[in-house]
Amino acid sequence: MIESNVKAIEWCNQHLKLLDQRVLPHEEAYVLCADANSVADAIRDMVVRGAPAIGISAAYGVVLAARIRFAERGAAWKQALANDIEVLWHARPTAVNLHWALKRMQGFISGLSDTLDPVPALEEEAVRIHQEDIAANYAMGQAGAEVIAQSAKTGRRLMTHCNTGSLATGGYGTALGVIRSAYHRGLVEHVHADETRPWMQGARLTVWELMQDNIPVSLNADSAAAYLMQQGNISWVIVGADRITANGDTANKIGTYSLAVLAKYHNVGFMVVAPTSTIDMSLDSGKLIPIEARGAAEVAEIQGKRIAPAGVAAENPVFDVTPAELIDVIVTEKGVVVNPTREKMLALFEH
Amino acid sequence: MIESNVKAIEWCNQHLKLLDQRVLPHEEAYVLCADANSVADAIRDMVVRGAPAIGISAAYGVVLAARIRFAERGAAWKQALANDIEVLWHARPTAVNLHWALKRMQGFISGLSDTLDPVPALEEEAVRIHQEDIAANYAMGQAGAEVIAQSAKTGRRLMTHCNTGSLATGGYGTALGVIRSAYHRGLVEHVHADETRPWMQGARLTVWELMQDNIPVSLNADSAAAYLMQQGNISWVIVGADRITANGDTANKIGTYSLAVLAKYHNVGFMVVAPTSTIDMSLDSGKLIPIEARGAAEVAEIQGKRIAPAGVAAENPVFDVTPAELIDVIVTEKGVVVNPTREKMLALFEH
Repeated sequence: MIESNVKAIEWCNQHLKLLDQRVLPHEEAYVLCADANSVADAIRDMVVRGAPAIGISAAYGVVLAARIRFAERGAAWKQALANDIEVLWHARPTAVNLHWALKRMQGFISGLSDTLDPVPALEEEAVRIHQEDIAANYAMGQAGAEVIAQSAKTGRRLMTHCNTGSLATGGYGTALGVIRSAYHRGLVEHVHADETRPWMQGARLTVWELMQDNIPVSLNADSAAAYLMQQGNISWVIVGADRITANGDTANKIGTYSLAVLAKYHNVGFMVVAPTSTIDMSLDSGKLIPIEARGAAEVAEIQGKRIAPAGVAAENPVFDVTPAELIDVIVTEKGVVVNPTREKMLALFEH
Repeated sequence: MIESNVKAIEWCNQHLKLLDQRVLPHEEAYVLCADANSVADAIRDMVVRGAPAIGISAAYGVVLAARIRFAERGAAWKQALANDIEVLWHARPTAVNLHWALKRMQGFISGLSDTLDPVPALEEEAVRIHQEDIAANYAMGQAGAEVIAQSAKTGRRLMTHCNTGSLATGGYGTALGVIRSAYHRGLVEHVHADETRPWMQGARLTVWELMQDNIPVSLNADSAAAYLMQQGNISWVIVGADRITANGDTANKIGTYSLAVLAKYHNVGFMVVAPTSTIDMSLDSGKLIPIEARGAAEVAEIQGKRIAPAGVAAENPVFDVTPAELIDVIVTEKGVVVNPTREKMLALFEH
């Protein structure tokens, strides 16, 4: 695997250092978080984004909070920490990795002594979550590239949406990890990156990451995706996920569902790449996923520049749900699910 | 019909006054054109946009040029004017109304004397083109609203793309004219306006026009259109056209084809509204329509604000082609074509 140099999340023992993704690619600025509140703010304000990256950041947030609570409260630290975990839990509603990481930290905490300093052990666990995510990305990269290699689709162009790379994960990337792996195996000629309104993660982040790695990429307006598919030669649309339910339905960045419908119409493959920490087997179907709606300003303005008239109403759903029947394959670190169904998703975990 | 107050094109005898649509809705600035070159520049630079508005502006451009050429060259004015028409002809490639209007002016010119001042007659003809366009819009507004009224679709929400209103036409609008008429007939509860990247005609112009007329509208990112259709209650997507070929294939703003595929999948009606001056019976099918591609900066920047990294490549097709089989109805001032085919399109003109 060829590593990516981009580091979105850096653990510095006394604080968590987050690359401020709101100002990329124009500025490389960092936000330092010293407690759970500042980590929750960074998640809410999208300093850090991408489902896996949010989960990892929250885990580190628990470590920061535990240090403060143990110093303040001694043996009562667990009780005090519960509030911090609550704050982190509600930072954003859709990505399940956030809850997955916090539950894992909670489980770990329940096994710790009340009187010993919990920080070294918690730190180890958070670092483990981070490292496991990177390892999962490498595994998914290889598995997804293998799917492309084995596929009958002959086009050598891929399309992706939003940003699912090093910036969105512990490192390397989910969908962008597959694209990296496939490129380095010589399976890819060109990547089409949707700009991904309203937050422009494609234009600001994906294009930047791929340019840093010298992978041929061009940017397009989201609404040009259908036109590009109509021209032919796109073999796969490859996207990440914010939450996958027990039947394979997938919540991801707004516009993903649109691409899935368009891919089906144009006989383009549709691949979802996500670690099993993104799969929420407690939800029966995508209808149950809470969809975050953000303010009108994100659509009416672009990075602070007003576009639409003052006072305009806007619909701003941040995610949409792609039903499993539109998904050709879900790639996880535990294996690949072709034409996902409830039974196949269950089998993935029993494996 | 309830008129719209917006005037994008105003003929002032000595010059053509164009509302500068590049700076709306923040500024109401005007560009004054005194010759054919400045009209061609205004068309190329998108001071004026929208297929019918481009055609009307070009017709007035011929009047301005004729005044200059007759003063300079006397009886040789026709020969000199041919160059001006040539410049106007090439201002933009996709919208056929431009060529339609110039051909009509050329035909009219060929019937004029070499020695008499041609300006009064040419002026009358250009004003006639302008007035006929407004009358056509009113007729289409009524016809399209009637299609909605008669339709079995029960949703009371409409979706539109780009701007097809008073700003894009001689006045009132094509698709937006139908929406206006349907709203005033009580058939519409809400309008969803796609923002229409990269030029943001939806966010800047459509929303502004509808707010001025107190028609309930909300803005959405183009990529949220599929999500909104999935939620149900959208009965029709209504769009304009830049060129319609003999078989009913329709070139329109990038993203239109995407909406047509999505509408088909969601059982939402898809209506194209355009005057017959937009129909190019000389082209057999949409494959023959030249599609304008503009520079990368329009995608990499938004209104002069840089979004993507410097040096990024971009695909920026300005139009796409929707095949006739995805179109439920084409509404023209001469009549309505349901499920358009070559035979039905021909019948429209023989009528």
